[in-house]
Amino acid sequence: MQWECFHHSPRSNWAYAYDKDTIHLRVQTKRDDVEEVTAVTGDKYDWEGCHEDVPMEKIAYDHFFDYWEAAVKPKYKRFSYGFRMRAGDETVFMTESGIGPDQPEPPGGYYEFPYIHEIDIFTAPEWAKEAVFYQIMPDRFEIGDPSISPDGVCDWGGEPTRESFFGGDLQGILERLDHLTDLGVTAVYLTPIFEAPSNHKYDTVNYMKVDPHFGDTAMLKKLVRECHDRGIRVVLDAVFNHTSEQFPPFQDVLRKGEQSKYANWFHIREFPPEVRDGVPTYDTFGFYGNMPKLNTANPEVKAYLLDVAATWIREADIDGWRLDVANEIDHHFWRDFRKTVKELKPDAYIIGEVWSESRPWLLGDQFDSVMNYPFADKVLGFFAEDAFDGRAFAEQMNNLLMRYPQQTNEVIFNLLSSHDTPRVLTRVGEDKRRLKLAVVYLLTYIGTPCIFYGDEVGLKGGGDPDCRQCMEWEEERQDRDLHDFYKLLIDLRKSHPVLRSGRFRFLKADGGDSRVIYERLGEGEHFIIWMNNTPEETHMEHPLETDDWEDALTGERVPVEEGVQTIKLDPYGYRIMMRKL
Amino acid sequence: MQWECFHHSPRSNWAYAYDKDTIHLRVQTKRDDVEEVTAVTGDKYDWEGCHEDVPMEKIAYDHFFDYWEAAVKPKYKRFSYGFRMRAGDETVFMTESGIGPDQPEPPGGYYEFPYIHEIDIFTAPEWAKEAVFYQIMPDRFEIGDPSISPDGVCDWGGEPTRESFFGGDLQGILERLDHLTDLGVTAVYLTPIFEAPSNHKYDTVNYMKVDPHFGDTAMLKKLVRECHDRGIRVVLDAVFNHTSEQFPPFQDVLRKGEQSKYANWFHIREFPPEVRDGVPTYDTFGFYGNMPKLNTANPEVKAYLLDVAATWIREADIDGWRLDVANEIDHHFWRDFRKTVKELKPDAYIIGEVWSESRPWLLGDQFDSVMNYPFADKVLGFFAEDAFDGRAFAEQMNNLLMRYPQQTNEVIFNLLSSHDTPRVLTRVGEDKRRLKLAVVYLLTYIGTPCIFYGDEVGLKGGGDPDCRQCMEWEEERQDRDLHDFYKLLIDLRKSHPVLRSGRFRFLKADGGDSRVIYERLGEGEHFIIWMNNTPEETHMEHPLETDDWEDALTGERVPVEEGVQTIKLDPYGYRIMMRKL
Repeated sequence: MQWECFHHSPRSNWAYAYDKDTIHLRVQTKRDDVEEVTAVTGDKYDWEGCHEDVPMEKIAYDHFFDYWEAAVKPKYKRFSYGFRMRAGDETVFMTESGIGPDQPEPPGGYYEFPYIHEIDIFTAPEWAKEAVFYQIMPDRFEIGDPSISPDGVCDWGGEPTRESFFGGDLQGILERLDHLTDLGVTAVYLTPIFEAPSNHKYDTVNYMKVDPHFGDTAMLKKLVRECHDRGIRVVLDAVFNHTSEQFPPFQDVLRKGEQSKYANWFHIREFPPEVRDGVPTYDTFGFYGNMPKLNTANPEVKAYLLDVAATWIREADIDGWRLDVANEIDHHFWRDFRKTVKELKPDAYIIGEVWSESRPWLLGDQFDSVMNYPFADKVLGFFAEDAFDGRAFAEQMNNLLMRYPQQTNEVIFNLLSSHDTPRVLTRVGEDKRRLKLAVVYLLTYIGTPCIFYGDEVGLKGGGDPDCRQCMEWEEERQDRDLHDFYKLLIDLRKSHPVLRSGRFRFLKADGGDSRVIYERLGEGEHFIIWMNNTPEETHMEHPLETDDWEDALTGERVPVEEGVQTIKLDPYGYRIMMRKL
Repeated sequence: MQWECFHHSPRSNWAYAYDKDTIHLRVQTKRDDVEEVTAVTGDKYDWEGCHEDVPMEKIAYDHFFDYWEAAVKPKYKRFSYGFRMRAGDETVFMTESGIGPDQPEPPGGYYEFPYIHEIDIFTAPEWAKEAVFYQIMPDRFEIGDPSISPDGVCDWGGEPTRESFFGGDLQGILERLDHLTDLGVTAVYLTPIFEAPSNHKYDTVNYMKVDPHFGDTAMLKKLVRECHDRGIRVVLDAVFNHTSEQFPPFQDVLRKGEQSKYANWFHIREFPPEVRDGVPTYDTFGFYGNMPKLNTANPEVKAYLLDVAATWIREADIDGWRLDVANEIDHHFWRDFRKTVKELKPDAYIIGEVWSESRPWLLGDQFDSVMNYPFADKVLGFFAEDAFDGRAFAEQMNNLLMRYPQQTNEVIFNLLSSHDTPRVLTRVGEDKRRLKLAVVYLLTYIGTPCIFYGDEVGLKGGGDPDCRQCMEWEEERQDRDLHDFYKLLIDLRKSHPVLRSGRFRFLKADGGDSRVIYERLGEGEHFIIWMNNTPEETHMEHPLETDDWEDALTGERVPVEEGVQTIKLDPYGYRIMMRKL
């Protein structure tokens, strides 16, 4: 066995409380190297009396490693542990002290889970596990009240530019709630709605005021209320990393310099704050001089922003916050943010915008979730760009799953496109068959899926600002087939809990082959999804032990003959099979 | 190169802010496998304009891996990065997205350090980096006021049992401060002093009252004041995991059961709280029914204990807290504890009792330090038990160093013995030569050293309670040679900053050989410590580039001939060489 490939880290995504009674242990070994792993556990104060050997299951693999997991339920909320690995006749033992052929005397030097504290357990809102999200940019969704549109709005459906306004507003969303209800989504995430000069409003001037071109507080409250009446939750965008340069405190600093009482609200490297040779003398979002970065470590700034977070929960009863550029804000701020938000609304859902590995924010004390851009990259790498074969795709997906505890994976915010990326239909080269594969994957995968407004009716578009088109409301210009497909898949997900919380596993994912099969298993149902991510018609086979499978979308019985199911798939075709357990 | 052995984890001990301008990056490769590692860095918003390749240095190795480190000073407090590894003609590139022969287009998929927030940087008190600690159990140190001794105290110097009292008290410590000053220690850590029935007082009855057998608040204040006058800091023991069964709230629960207003102050699994077949029906420290565990997640309990923490800083001006059984208390509690303590005294030193890997508590938001029992295990494994050869010893020490960021290593609480372990003289089989090697190592190593009272005069003793003997004050019964040795080494450490904060590195640590050489380097000085951890006299050689070395203890010039220094060492002998830079 390759000892140097063994890996475990106590009290991390490798050893975490899943609930108040259960610890999940994970350990890594070199791929296809170890045959059996056992977690050897006991209470450090009474090892013999509480000793238990728990077999571990190989739950995933990636390019280099196998991952093993076991759920341990210690009798007294605490335990020490080591791992015994076996391959053939060889047995080795790993503890925190090292690796060797013999089991060291327990519990000295063993790994420890000292005590399960409920308060420390990462718990995300139950509703977020069940939700299907829909992301809306208000300026681009629908015009409800033309009287409040900005001057000089472009014609609806025109080409979006960095400066163009189209006049969408909150009343427009309100008037289109039937579309959401019909589609079946259960939550919306609105990009920023507070007063800001730009069309995207990621440059806030007044956090306490709905942008007058979008509506007012009363309209926001009405929108949330009507969403709630339809069983739709509402999440707003918290842009706390930076403001607009027109934000009054920054204007005060521009006027008064170091004498401003707001001088420490920002990160001014050198007074006066100005842009020299394209580089601001103060910290900004990117290098945008019109987006000065807030000093969230300043208690005044923090109090102000936490008040913003609280106000809109109290005033408008919103259900959560999506956190813009969340990774560039300090952890102390986010810890207090969580406290503020959860005290007011314990089941508020907090989603950080972090594009890379996000563990430091997902330890239970900061976010519930992050926008899962790595998911989009890998899924579109496979279904849109042929960047991987089935084997590499499975390796990449498994690698992402192993980054986080199970309860994080259950609510991570999975998306295929957003206001910051090309639209999915454009990324798949406008091949709807590929798009559908990606959407089937999104909606049968573990995590909280989000659909970018308009993707469901066939909107296209490259990167920002091209992806930020106006929603298409003329039915004859909508792709209704695509719409009905989204609707069908959303309904399927909502009807089957196993698609939200069942165990995910690849059953077929081979090198040099872009056909994959994966399963979701648990809670009384078993799904197997077959995908032919190739341009040729194919027959796929998979051994199955029972003969009670039906097509989940059509109800058609699909036989298993001599222990093997054979499925014919069109080019870029798929089948979703299920059975009751 | 063995790609599967590459390891890095963003925003962790592998990538952390050392100060407000500097990020330390570390990466792991298989031992002796990679010749060159480069951190490829840039600003994600302007990669080309801020791109920098930073060579990494191999700073350590353990059994399986080499560890590389670089200090990066990004221009705008943020950067993205990847690693380029080279061995011979082969070059590979590692980012968060994976490993491959070609450098992926930056910055998508690269690792990120999104922004250096000063507030998030782990910073421990400066004084703790410089300190030499001395641990005292008050009942066993000195009797100052016999009138307050408990009834039936044993004769001073008798055999300690679990029940025996010897009558030591705070005034006794006060009267013996000359001993501390003479020895040269700069901080004391007192085991618990608050009212408690036991001799060790880890079973508190009243957190707001100095145990009457030890003195009173006025005496504590006087002791702290006089310590401060001598430049000695005072750290007390916070026993917050559990109380005595005589703690009034627990007594209330015993009387009133579920109706007690304190019912939720503890973790009662089943009412009535009682011990059945040796197992309490409530959570405890270990299985000790007389030590009920506090429910620190209960806001009332938390407020009460934080008030305790604050009170003794305010009242008595203590300089920090050592946290008993810290790993069994929830993280939320410790975060608020840190805030409370640091608001009152920003340079208070917080040391957790955690015997195993302690990263979750050392992220900057909880503890400054932990008691480094793994250090004691490895050092005594080498110097006392011959459990490793030089090579394995170096591997183990390096492995511990790589667990934590540098600033943690600088203040981690290194010890050889405590009230919970056998005394070091006993662990070395009463071989003073071996003891001296361990002490030289302790006092020339990175971290905050602590000496257990009496070790410096030759006290012996096995595990608890045998290690908890009375201090020996009769000079003729003290080992004065040992005392003077400790004093000399403490003075050496205090006189040379490089011994506290210089870079540590093994220069010789070979398989099958228990002779080691290591260096401390930096801040104008260079130390090389030679150790012969064998029973035979030996001559050791080491190549050196300069000829300006002297013995740091004697001042004797020690020549380098033809680029090699040769040192004769007695059995279990050592030499400490230094030169000015």
